[in-house]
Amino acid sequence: KLTSMGFYSPRVFLRHIFSSQEAGVWPIWMEDETGRLDQTVVGNKDFSVTFLPVHLTVSPAAERLRYILGDDEETMPTPTLFTEMDTLQQEGDELEWKESARWVKFEEKVEEGGERWSKPHVSTLSLHSLFELRTCLQTGTVLLDLEGYSLPQIVDDIIERQIEEGLIGPELRDKISFVLLRKHRHQTKKPIHRSLADLGKSGSGFFILCSLLFQLKNKFMKKIPRDAEASNVLVGEVDFLEKPFVAFVRLSQATTLGGLTEVPVPTRFLFVLLGPLGKAKSYNEIGRAIATLMVDDLFSDVAYKARDREDLIAGIDEFLDEVIVLPPGEWDPKIRIEPPKKIPSSVFNLNELGQMNGTAGGGGPLGEELAYTGRFCGGLFLDIKRKLPWYPSDFYEGFHIQSISAVLFIYLGCITNAITFGGLLGDATDNYQVHLANFMSTFLGTALAGTVFCLFSGQPLIILSSTGPILIFEKLLYEFSKNNGIDYMELRLWIGIHSCVQCLFLVAMDASYIIKYMTRFTEEGFSSLISFIFISDAIKKMVGSFKYYPINTDFKPDYVTAYKCECLAPDTSKSILGIEHVTSEMLNITALDWTQLSKKECVKYGGSLVGKSCKYVPDLALMSFILFFGTYTMTVTLKKFKFSRYFPTKLRKLISDFSIFMSIMTFVGLDMLIGLQTPKLIVPTEFKPTRADRGWFVMPFGKNPWWVYLASFVPALLVTILIFMDQQISAVIVNRKENKLKKGCGYHLDLIWVGFLMAACSFMGLPWYVAATVISIAHIDSLKMESESSAPGEQPQFLGVREQRLTGILVFVLTGVSIFLAPILQFIPMPVLYGVFLYMGVASLSGIQFWDRIKLIMMPAKHQPDFSYLRHVPLRRVHLFTLLQIVCLAVLWILKSTFLAIIFPVMILGLMVIRKMLDMVFSQHDLAWLDDILPEKEKKKKEDEKKNTKKEKKKGKGGNDSEDVSVLVA
Amino acid sequence: KLTSMGFYSPRVFLRHIFSSQEAGVWPIWMEDETGRLDQTVVGNKDFSVTFLPVHLTVSPAAERLRYILGDDEETMPTPTLFTEMDTLQQEGDELEWKESARWVKFEEKVEEGGERWSKPHVSTLSLHSLFELRTCLQTGTVLLDLEGYSLPQIVDDIIERQIEEGLIGPELRDKISFVLLRKHRHQTKKPIHRSLADLGKSGSGFFILCSLLFQLKNKFMKKIPRDAEASNVLVGEVDFLEKPFVAFVRLSQATTLGGLTEVPVPTRFLFVLLGPLGKAKSYNEIGRAIATLMVDDLFSDVAYKARDREDLIAGIDEFLDEVIVLPPGEWDPKIRIEPPKKIPSSVFNLNELGQMNGTAGGGGPLGEELAYTGRFCGGLFLDIKRKLPWYPSDFYEGFHIQSISAVLFIYLGCITNAITFGGLLGDATDNYQVHLANFMSTFLGTALAGTVFCLFSGQPLIILSSTGPILIFEKLLYEFSKNNGIDYMELRLWIGIHSCVQCLFLVAMDASYIIKYMTRFTEEGFSSLISFIFISDAIKKMVGSFKYYPINTDFKPDYVTAYKCECLAPDTSKSILGIEHVTSEMLNITALDWTQLSKKECVKYGGSLVGKSCKYVPDLALMSFILFFGTYTMTVTLKKFKFSRYFPTKLRKLISDFSIFMSIMTFVGLDMLIGLQTPKLIVPTEFKPTRADRGWFVMPFGKNPWWVYLASFVPALLVTILIFMDQQISAVIVNRKENKLKKGCGYHLDLIWVGFLMAACSFMGLPWYVAATVISIAHIDSLKMESESSAPGEQPQFLGVREQRLTGILVFVLTGVSIFLAPILQFIPMPVLYGVFLYMGVASLSGIQFWDRIKLIMMPAKHQPDFSYLRHVPLRRVHLFTLLQIVCLAVLWILKSTFLAIIFPVMILGLMVIRKMLDMVFSQHDLAWLDDILPEKEKKKKEDEKKNTKKEKKKGKGGNDSEDVSVLVA
Repeated sequence: KLTSMGFYSPRVFLRHIFSSQEAGVWPIWMEDETGRLDQTVVGNKDFSVTFLPVHLTVSPAAERLRYILGDDEETMPTPTLFTEMDTLQQEGDELEWKESARWVKFEEKVEEGGERWSKPHVSTLSLHSLFELRTCLQTGTVLLDLEGYSLPQIVDDIIERQIEEGLIGPELRDKISFVLLRKHRHQTKKPIHRSLADLGKSGSGFFILCSLLFQLKNKFMKKIPRDAEASNVLVGEVDFLEKPFVAFVRLSQATTLGGLTEVPVPTRFLFVLLGPLGKAKSYNEIGRAIATLMVDDLFSDVAYKARDREDLIAGIDEFLDEVIVLPPGEWDPKIRIEPPKKIPSSVFNLNELGQMNGTAGGGGPLGEELAYTGRFCGGLFLDIKRKLPWYPSDFYEGFHIQSISAVLFIYLGCITNAITFGGLLGDATDNYQVHLANFMSTFLGTALAGTVFCLFSGQPLIILSSTGPILIFEKLLYEFSKNNGIDYMELRLWIGIHSCVQCLFLVAMDASYIIKYMTRFTEEGFSSLISFIFISDAIKKMVGSFKYYPINTDFKPDYVTAYKCECLAPDTSKSILGIEHVTSEMLNITALDWTQLSKKECVKYGGSLVGKSCKYVPDLALMSFILFFGTYTMTVTLKKFKFSRYFPTKLRKLISDFSIFMSIMTFVGLDMLIGLQTPKLIVPTEFKPTRADRGWFVMPFGKNPWWVYLASFVPALLVTILIFMDQQISAVIVNRKENKLKKGCGYHLDLIWVGFLMAACSFMGLPWYVAATVISIAHIDSLKMESESSAPGEQPQFLGVREQRLTGILVFVLTGVSIFLAPILQFIPMPVLYGVFLYMGVASLSGIQFWDRIKLIMMPAKHQPDFSYLRHVPLRRVHLFTLLQIVCLAVLWILKSTFLAIIFPVMILGLMVIRKMLDMVFSQHDLAWLDDILPEKEKKKKEDEKKNTKKEKKKGKGGNDSEDVSVLVA
Repeated sequence: KLTSMGFYSPRVFLRHIFSSQEAGVWPIWMEDETGRLDQTVVGNKDFSVTFLPVHLTVSPAAERLRYILGDDEETMPTPTLFTEMDTLQQEGDELEWKESARWVKFEEKVEEGGERWSKPHVSTLSLHSLFELRTCLQTGTVLLDLEGYSLPQIVDDIIERQIEEGLIGPELRDKISFVLLRKHRHQTKKPIHRSLADLGKSGSGFFILCSLLFQLKNKFMKKIPRDAEASNVLVGEVDFLEKPFVAFVRLSQATTLGGLTEVPVPTRFLFVLLGPLGKAKSYNEIGRAIATLMVDDLFSDVAYKARDREDLIAGIDEFLDEVIVLPPGEWDPKIRIEPPKKIPSSVFNLNELGQMNGTAGGGGPLGEELAYTGRFCGGLFLDIKRKLPWYPSDFYEGFHIQSISAVLFIYLGCITNAITFGGLLGDATDNYQVHLANFMSTFLGTALAGTVFCLFSGQPLIILSSTGPILIFEKLLYEFSKNNGIDYMELRLWIGIHSCVQCLFLVAMDASYIIKYMTRFTEEGFSSLISFIFISDAIKKMVGSFKYYPINTDFKPDYVTAYKCECLAPDTSKSILGIEHVTSEMLNITALDWTQLSKKECVKYGGSLVGKSCKYVPDLALMSFILFFGTYTMTVTLKKFKFSRYFPTKLRKLISDFSIFMSIMTFVGLDMLIGLQTPKLIVPTEFKPTRADRGWFVMPFGKNPWWVYLASFVPALLVTILIFMDQQISAVIVNRKENKLKKGCGYHLDLIWVGFLMAACSFMGLPWYVAATVISIAHIDSLKMESESSAPGEQPQFLGVREQRLTGILVFVLTGVSIFLAPILQFIPMPVLYGVFLYMGVASLSGIQFWDRIKLIMMPAKHQPDFSYLRHVPLRRVHLFTLLQIVCLAVLWILKSTFLAIIFPVMILGLMVIRKMLDMVFSQHDLAWLDDILPEKEKKKKEDEKKNTKKEKKKGKGGNDSEDVSVLVA
């Protein structure tokens, strides 16, 4: 039962109903015992807030508007209006209408002398001009639903009416008509106009050509919605009028009126203001006021539906009641205000609580996907049931130009990752598995696992890869087995098998529901740790090259004669120097020419290297550093280029998207140019297992005692926990509500495939693969869709992600094909890859709220960004939370470096326990802003809120946000 | 004769008079034949614009305000108001007044949950609340000039009046009094306050003492002017009222009322609004509205001088008439608007023409200093007359903490410059003059010339140094004399003497007036050229080190045994290999141990170097590159750090100011740590002339034929032109109006000293010194003064520059003393200095409008910054102007590289000719925005404008900016 509303004026109220419905929120209005209105929104739990009591007083204007707008809720929404304002100008001997500003949503002004469009900006009006406009509409002619087919006819009708109403004398008819029918000159066409006129005189053919080309691809048209209609505002001063001539016309049908409008959009509204000389500035302001009103959502509705003059006046009054006022002493009206990032929408005005649950949390999607079914494989069946209908569209929706750039981008990330992790894994396990030199198996493994996952998983946007935590675990396991005389590959196979079974068990038991307890705290702890591993590994590798290629810091260029390295034959006889010399010479003759031997050969044949330069390798360390640092810096710089002012948006986006690729190419080129023997990817010529003692498949039995097969259950448990955490945290991040995924997720389905692949990879001695957070996020980012036609100045709307399996599959097929890229890949220096690695670590840190909060510690309060949690949580509590997180991470990092590292996966679980304990330190309110609320707490909190609301209602106090204020004025 | 004004409302009008007077502009108002008002501003030619005609209609509110404000122009200005708003809150069982926002100029809000102050922001009000406030003041109690000594007494008086007026019943007296006297809790004081309250409710005396102590270190206090008074706004809802209780009180004397105000500022105004329950939000908005009004310049004047309620209402009406309105659909009121960079000031509203001449030009100070006197040495005498009275203050005003940082900063710049230019000059002249190895004489020369100049010159803020153009000229001169068999040093001496005489002649003839014709075009052309020389030299030097230390790109680490460099004795006999070997061995025994010789020795004794590593020097080139690039990058990064969000402002400024020093130290440290033999400053152990054939002084006669002494007049003319241009362009930049120099300049005096020093330096064989643009600008920048107490959020006002001679003298004394720094300076690697050099070139480019315009070419129109000239000049004209400038520079650059380089100084003069020719390509309007107008044109333009104005007046058209608009509304 809809009666009325209070503090929320008709604008908010009406918009509210419409937009809530769009957002899938259905408001229910109830009157309570005191005659106040209470709204409960149901249907979307994020907005399930109770509305606080409101008064029942409505101004006459609001009442009128509610009548004309509220009644026909079922009618079509009104078209978008494009508004153009033309002013009367003396151009040479002739009068003409010159375009001076236009509005799609924001104002664009023709710069006086600049002959160009200003940036779109918020229209700052003077209150004065709004009141003047109101007077104009009260006294002028208002023609609603005029049948108009041409401008002359419309002008005639207007003048006729004015004469009828006695506003002007009939002697003015011709003069006014003459002025109103002067030709219109539009900004974009101006160069043509001019140069065409002056063609004979100046002959600036180049400019004509340019402007013609410019018009052909008039981009502006794209910014106007297809169904848009135009409203034209004409203002000017003439010498024959004594008082203003004002007319507001609405045509019954939108009609294209010759060259009236800059773009081919039919005109619906016409506002004319002609007045006596000397007030051009004032007329301009009035024109800007009506133009701004015409593009206002509410007023344009009013204008379309108004029955008479009074409806329009009521529309202005309602507009006035809502305007935002800036004090004249604090703001210079000449400053053009940039359009805000987010335009006010009533959905977000609903209540801060709604926002808090919805946006501030940003946490896990606590939807039905993770509900605990209690049935055997219940979650898995639901996942399949949910994903199956989308399966065909998962393929055909992939055919889009955007997919190509996404595939290239992710492919580069994948092979970089594969190469680098492959190298680390090889190092860690003495090349038992894969080796840098045999990146082929890494590529094949990645390709195999990735393709299978993309084909059958629940969330194909996730990209599988080797990850840091798995790497660490494998390293520890290898050391453990080596120290205890256990065959590593066989143990690893059994762990894989056990782990696979455990994963199946977890899926069968719907265990993934536990991730509801993974809040931002856990997520961020885990992903920060991974980022730190990336960063520290990259730096370690770089520092390592200074050890591998030592620099001779004592080198004096002038004494170059003193530096050499000679290979001396082994000292076989304990003779004096002279005799030894003879002996070695004899050996030389008989066996080897020792001076001709390389360093390796010399050592191999037992010779000794003597000389000042033997220990040193010149240039390579410094060159490596330049390549490493250069790649990193260039990637960062190019990535930021998206926000620069130079070049068109598309080119900048391209540069930014391919920043990693371009940096790699640049520094590979530099390296080739200089030609130093920096460490490169060594590419094998044959395709074979890395170690002679390793076959293609790992045999399950024979090398270890029988009890190892059973005991490997325990480390498998650790691996399972690790894989579970790693996989599901990445999945939670990918499935976040902010990404607006429409096809749902499939945590159980994902996990079962990870389990299967684990067993398969163990059999083949390939690395284990789980979801790679950083690359998966990059995948999502490169597939984001944005609305095409947004008004100039308006931020494009994020529509969602191109959810499909095609890009993922292509990425992995390409990865598999990459083994044929060997001849090209061998030119890539390793330091370049380390640079990319460093970049990936740093880049993934920057998206984390935890990192934002760390930066806050170093900022004086006045420079801190306006994060929403800072408005609601005391700064010292924010810092305390951050410090606790830092301590947790530091402890994890230290543990990771000790013998306890083997239980590292369990420590990640420990983060969830610590988060639980934080409930004792922080209030639920603070945690809601800084983290998410744990499920059981959330329930409790909602109950508390309900109680509070009721209490406040009874006390009649605290309803600060929704009180009516009109009593005081009336 | 002041009658009235039109479109300019009282606010602008009154402000206008006051602020114009402050700015030294004296308006004269004249009524013309039509009864309109015409203003001519005289006394400051930058604002000599004629006001356009205005109407004579004034609203009643404006009339009223003009009466109360306009009459007592001679009275003291009213104090600044600090406004605090407290709201009534239930804290536990007790009611208390909690501070919720405060205003010095902008609003700072207490963040709800954050327990901290928000950033200062522009108060966005709702129009609604302003109307409500108006109603409040119309119906509530207004007590003006109340004798108040304590809060209880004031509260009693208010309530008494309300009862008298029949607004409340007497039964409410105690309740209202009780509520209004509840204690006040302030945001900053919260901890103390609480503990005090718990201290046994001790006397208010102790409480005041405590809060005073606390406030001693209250930084916020600094932001409030010393003479400020407070206005307190108290709003709250109570359960015993049926309708609002409103009171506006002005005390006859500002009084400290206990703990009412957060800071110890006496209260002058009190606004109280208590109302029935349920409208807290509305009351809050009304409180914010009155608080915003109280800090408004005009309204606070009205509040101080109001005679009755109607005056206050008129103040609100005037405020309303001027407010800026944002459409509700385009702006979210929740966004906090950052305070604008520049707060509207009527001086800048005067007229765009004024702005155009004053700001857009930004060019030469065309003041009386450069007037052509026509008398012998007229300008020089005027210079001395102008500067002499300031002479004592030039010393004692230097004693300020800021001077220390300025001295250190400029000192570092100077020695960097001296070392680098010294090196280049030495290279260019085969060490005839100074040499890198003998930087001592460079230091001494710089110290001598600089100290003399700083002591006696007309503009002691200018720093003398070797400069690029002089360097180029010397190089060319040296080559010329070498090729023609003329003794360079003697020729140079004669050129110096001639040039000195020519400078004296120029001074005597007041020739410096010619620099009025040096517009931005010439200035920027010249300084861009210098910047490019800096940049190209730095890069050349860097590339050079790759040639000086060649890298062995074929080096294979494994074949280290194959690389050596042996010194072989000269091949004296044409014998076969075996015999030669014997011979050399014999020589070895008899004369030298050839294998022990260094590279240099080997070459010296005629040996030959044989081996793969002879040609190469490892590591040094790459290390040099790292040092070079690192120094540059770090300096740029640290310089930008000033604009980062981290750390307090002062620390950031410190880091930014010392960025060059810190970068040098960092990379010197890195170089020492690695320990490679990078090229360092080689420091001599003795102090002696660089070449054996050079004495301490250059003898004027004996080495060249007699006619050379006369003929050197011609090259001397070139040098004079060059020095004149270099010196005076730098002086023009330093003396720019933007720097707000108060002690005047002395172009003639400067030039005479440069001439004298030129002769002196020529005698001693030291380089010639002129004003160094980059360092002089840095000097000015480091001495800039800003207003201390600016309201939070307000940009500090630039007050001027600490004009004195002390910093300059100290810099040069330090430079002289630096010869004792030799042991430290020898650790500085040359590549670090080249890095600094590169930075200086790039940094000085970035301040140039020409460079901004080059960047515009690469920007799509929508991303271009809102430069004022872009609003007035068509983009293609801007680009054309830029392209012409680029072509000019390119031609200069090419000429500089050919044999024509010797007439290089004349080419700079040529820029002025080209500028003159631009008058034919561009309109004066465009040139006024992009450049300055040449003197004779300016005269003409003004005449044209006058004509236009008159014409427009007659036509009654075109006065768009100053028309009255009130007719339409009334």
